[in-house]
Amino acid sequence: MDKVNLLEKFAKITEFWSPRLAGEMNDDYVKLVKLKGEFEWHSHAEQEEMFWVVRGTLTIALRDRDVVLGENEFFIIPRGVEHKPVAPEECWAVLFEPKTTLRRGKAEDADEAIPWV
Amino acid sequence: MDKVNLLEKFAKITEFWSPRLAGEMNDDYVKLVKLKGEFEWHSHAEQEEMFWVVRGTLTIALRDRDVVLGENEFFIIPRGVEHKPVAPEECWAVLFEPKTTLRRGKAEDADEAIPWV
Repeated sequence: MDKVNLLEKFAKITEFWSPRLAGEMNDDYVKLVKLKGEFEWHSHAEQEEMFWVVRGTLTIALRDRDVVLGENEFFIIPRGVEHKPVAPEECWAVLFEPKTTLRRGKAEDADEAIPWV
Repeated sequence: MDKVNLLEKFAKITEFWSPRLAGEMNDDYVKLVKLKGEFEWHSHAEQEEMFWVVRGTLTIALRDRDVVLGENEFFIIPRGVEHKPVAPEECWAVLFEPKTTLRRGKAEDADEAIPWV
């Protein structure tokens, strides 16, 4: 039960596309992730997911448009909506999502242990 | 389904201690609140609550210690733990909490409608 300083935690993350747990609250996790490049198209059938940009710029491609997030902007992806995060330059984002959320919405991701930062 | 720019939303809030909804995600609300002065001691028996400071400094008094949050720091208050937010100067905070959370943990708060910002 300690406070979390986001910039100190991000400083410890050395890999892109490797979310790290920074908090848990009720049935949700708070995850920190550094992004650079493109992730794959995916969706989460049962969960909404929030992306909050702390540093840099993140484009969330949807099938019908792009949502471009700058610092201190967030976007909540509705359940079932296909999306692809794209970060041409390094970007730091905070994710809020249910503990049941799988990284790419695929059952094979269920075995993936997400370490704390 | 639009992105939210936090600073633009905070600019619209003119009252202290009046949370405004900025997002909903699964069973949770994202609320923005400007704080100045002291709130009252309270707890939430069933819900954990996250305070994230976007601007300024917030002290969360607990019965056994104070947690002092600066910008880009967050703290998750465990369920049942008494706390009192204190902001000597104006502070902007984002709250993440279940939709069922009552402002002061009291049944009489259940009628309180929280408007969107």
